[in-house]
Amino acid sequence: MVKKWLNISKLAALVEGEWQGEEDVAVCALADIDEASEGQLAYLGRSQNIEAALTTGASALIISRDCTKPQLPVIIVDDPVLAAAVIHNHLLEKEFVAIGVHEQAVVGNDCTIPAEVSIGPMAVLGERVKLGKRVLISSGAVIGDDVRIGCDVKIYPNATILDRSVLGDRVVIHSGTVVGSDGFGYAHDQKGRPVKRPQVGYVQIDDDVEIGANSCIDRATFGRTWIKQGVKIDNLVHVSHNVEIGEYSIMAAQCGVAGSTVLGTGVVMGGHVAVSGHLKIGDRVTMAGRSGVASDQESGVVVAGFPAFAHRKWLRASAVFQKLPEMVKEIREIRKRMQEITEKIDNKRQQD
Amino acid sequence: MVKKWLNISKLAALVEGEWQGEEDVAVCALADIDEASEGQLAYLGRSQNIEAALTTGASALIISRDCTKPQLPVIIVDDPVLAAAVIHNHLLEKEFVAIGVHEQAVVGNDCTIPAEVSIGPMAVLGERVKLGKRVLISSGAVIGDDVRIGCDVKIYPNATILDRSVLGDRVVIHSGTVVGSDGFGYAHDQKGRPVKRPQVGYVQIDDDVEIGANSCIDRATFGRTWIKQGVKIDNLVHVSHNVEIGEYSIMAAQCGVAGSTVLGTGVVMGGHVAVSGHLKIGDRVTMAGRSGVASDQESGVVVAGFPAFAHRKWLRASAVFQKLPEMVKEIREIRKRMQEITEKIDNKRQQD
Amino acid sequence: MVKKWLNISKLAALVEGEWQGEEDVAVCALADIDEASEGQLAYLGRSQNIEAALTTGASALIISRDCTKPQLPVIIVDDPVLAAAVIHNHLLEKEFVAIGVHEQAVVGNDCTIPAEVSIGPMAVLGERVKLGKRVLISSGAVIGDDVRIGCDVKIYPNATILDRSVLGDRVVIHSGTVVGSDGFGYAHDQKGRPVKRPQVGYVQIDDDVEIGANSCIDRATFGRTWIKQGVKIDNLVHVSHNVEIGEYSIMAAQCGVAGSTVLGTGVVMGGHVAVSGHLKIGDRVTMAGRSGVASDQESGVVVAGFPAFAHRKWLRASAVFQKLPEMVKEIREIRKRMQEITEKIDNKRQQD
Repeated sequence: MVKKWLNISKLAALVEGEWQGEEDVAVCALADIDEASEGQLAYLGRSQNIEAALTTGASALIISRDCTKPQLPVIIVDDPVLAAAVIHNHLLEKEFVAIGVHEQAVVGNDCTIPAEVSIGPMAVLGERVKLGKRVLISSGAVIGDDVRIGCDVKIYPNATILDRSVLGDRVVIHSGTVVGSDGFGYAHDQKGRPVKRPQVGYVQIDDDVEIGANSCIDRATFGRTWIKQGVKIDNLVHVSHNVEIGEYSIMAAQCGVAGSTVLGTGVVMGGHVAVSGHLKIGDRVTMAGRSGVASDQESGVVVAGFPAFAHRKWLRASAVFQKLPEMVKEIREIRKRMQEITEKIDNKRQQD
Repeated sequence: MVKKWLNISKLAALVEGEWQGEEDVAVCALADIDEASEGQLAYLGRSQNIEAALTTGASALIISRDCTKPQLPVIIVDDPVLAAAVIHNHLLEKEFVAIGVHEQAVVGNDCTIPAEVSIGPMAVLGERVKLGKRVLISSGAVIGDDVRIGCDVKIYPNATILDRSVLGDRVVIHSGTVVGSDGFGYAHDQKGRPVKRPQVGYVQIDDDVEIGANSCIDRATFGRTWIKQGVKIDNLVHVSHNVEIGEYSIMAAQCGVAGSTVLGTGVVMGGHVAVSGHLKIGDRVTMAGRSGVASDQESGVVVAGFPAFAHRKWLRASAVFQKLPEMVKEIREIRKRMQEITEKIDNKRQQD
Repeated sequence: MVKKWLNISKLAALVEGEWQGEEDVAVCALADIDEASEGQLAYLGRSQNIEAALTTGASALIISRDCTKPQLPVIIVDDPVLAAAVIHNHLLEKEFVAIGVHEQAVVGNDCTIPAEVSIGPMAVLGERVKLGKRVLISSGAVIGDDVRIGCDVKIYPNATILDRSVLGDRVVIHSGTVVGSDGFGYAHDQKGRPVKRPQVGYVQIDDDVEIGANSCIDRATFGRTWIKQGVKIDNLVHVSHNVEIGEYSIMAAQCGVAGSTVLGTGVVMGGHVAVSGHLKIGDRVTMAGRSGVASDQESGVVVAGFPAFAHRKWLRASAVFQKLPEMVKEIREIRKRMQEITEKIDNKRQQD
């Protein structure tokens, strides 16, 4: 792979920053400040110590405006982490290499496949699949019938996109993830035995969504399960039938959302969070890791625990939880002492 | 796909219901009451408002016996959700289309494969595999050696059924699910290093079981891991070695059951539930979402929390949990006041 | 498969034990004590009852030194479970059967593949992959570019090992597991929209590691995610970018470790455990099932709950948790009684 070399003045302009230094050096890669070497650009995150800048092997640094200037050439920005991400993506950008359809891939009838795609070996496309330009379907991925996929989409190896799913542009689906599995819906007969409720809806995934490895997005019972624009989902996440995840929401690993719940825009879910079904979660709600959300949440709240409530209150309640055995003791002592007081008073009375 | 049109009188008979209306209309599909259009049948679930019936575009409705009759033709039943499921399954029923073995599938030696099966591209069957009639093995699914599969079984794309697994009739395994992976069992040597205990058992899955996407059913150490008739398992569920799941039990997403635990009939597990190993869980036990069950449970109990106890008690305890900081304050005040009382008494005494 | 028959005297020597009995019998398999039959060896685990030895069909037993000798020929050792594991592995050992590269597998350019390997149908290897001797790549497994794999490694069906991953000797990766998926890292732009931070690191998995089914090991942002020697990971486990798991650690099913956390040697994590990011967990730390570890932990501690603290204290606090509603009542009663006392005193005073 040929590396792109770019001057820091150009990169500074890309992120609306300034540059300073003896020289307008060129870099070809972004690296961690502790491991960077010549020709590489590093950055100093908010929590990172300026000391690291003294010993880094990097040729230049991205720093924040309030940061002490080190000896090195620097790009100065408001948010070094954001700038580093933007620059890193820029440096890694490369033209899409279309290998076409591998001779050991299988493509069903009546598919619409532009010339400019890459479909790896052992990939299987069903019937009437429509692909946009510059789509990558990796080895072993399976795409069901009537699936529509936008441009610049990346499906990693062994992912499965089932019938009638609709994916927007720039969607990324990592390995092992299943889109469009049946929702988990059963009626019960007179003897209490589950009877399957057919799941005839579909999954819609909008532009710029990224879904990690081995996650599951179930199709709707009727209608659609809807992952909106820019949502980022981690590994081993479960999204049930008819759920809607609002734009730019973040779901950390091993989260689950039960059926028909609607999440607003910019919601943040920590790891292992569980959300009950049929809820309305407002915009920008934050759920701390391991919380279990069992009721509607207003926009902007930060919740924790199970059943989840205000995070600040939860922190205090959790701190007390550890001391419960001591509280029990204290209450016992209070009772004892109260008994003593009562006896004192009664004695006094008798004396009187 | 040609649609089946059926009159509501016929459908009513199918679910032991009655029908009423000006006309014995025909329908070809079941739909959500809010989205239904002409030619479609909808239903009014118990929690749904009769108002929806006024505006639906459906040609007929399934309602419960105590429901106010709307203007539309209706099918009247005890349980509209159950009736809708039964009718929906009936409308969707279609003859099995046997495509045989795809030329890009691989079938090992000495397999027993009826003519009436569909084995998709990139599917791999090991040696001595036995399939029943009307079995679908989808693209990319892998079936190990000596696996036995009943009739009318559906294996979705990229699922993996490992050596010696036994599947009954009408079993459904969704994408990415692994049946027969090794149980997690290790001895420890003198230095504390884990030494693998070979897992030489198998997995038995009885008739009518459905397992969601990306779940894992481990093979037994010795003997079998056993998923009994009619069990329904959601996505990302973990079933350890030698576990037995009783008939018609329900396991919601992201549950896990540790080794050798035996669940009774009709057990219900909410999402994210964890059950410890070597336990006996009675029939019809319900475990609320996120509970962690660490001890045997008698039949019929409803438990929650971790370690799990009676759900009703848990609800009250959880409500108090939120107020723990206030309880601490209260105890502090009581101590203070008691101090005051003691001083009062002592003062009094001195005065005396 | 031809069975190996071995005399118990030989097997006793293998595990540094002694043997006793009328005869030096030969056995060909290890079995559960309740199900063993002639020609099989069984063992009596610490928690198992000696009664089982009276009715077993086994030809010989492995027992501990302090165990009452049964009628059967026995192998006497310090740790029967460990001895059984060692002997079982020995009995099951067989020569690697190299089938070479299946004609329906795809191997990329410039790979290094010894003659002595088995690469199953529908397996895909990228470019410049290096395999050691006696490697098994099962059906449907996908190996990315520049992956290096040691000797005697087993990759189960439909597993995915992505670009630049490095696996040591005797590593076992079960079905559906994904090694080298992107870490979950995003910066946020001025409008709060996530911007992907490229994940350019890799995953290193050292000798003797075993990873269960449908687990995910993410590649590092920079540098490596590192699973050290002898680590055993169960199903559906999530290991984030830049995490390090110390030698011989054990992670039970559905655990997750967030980014950059470093675990020491011999750590034990129960099922459903979650560990926050950027933590240091000492050697031999034990985290009870379902715990959520949110702070650094010193070597040797046993923690539980969330946020996790000492397991013993947690057990007591949890016991009190169930009684919180009664504590509330008690405090109310104390208040009431205190009120009565105060009134008594005040009455007394007035009388005085």
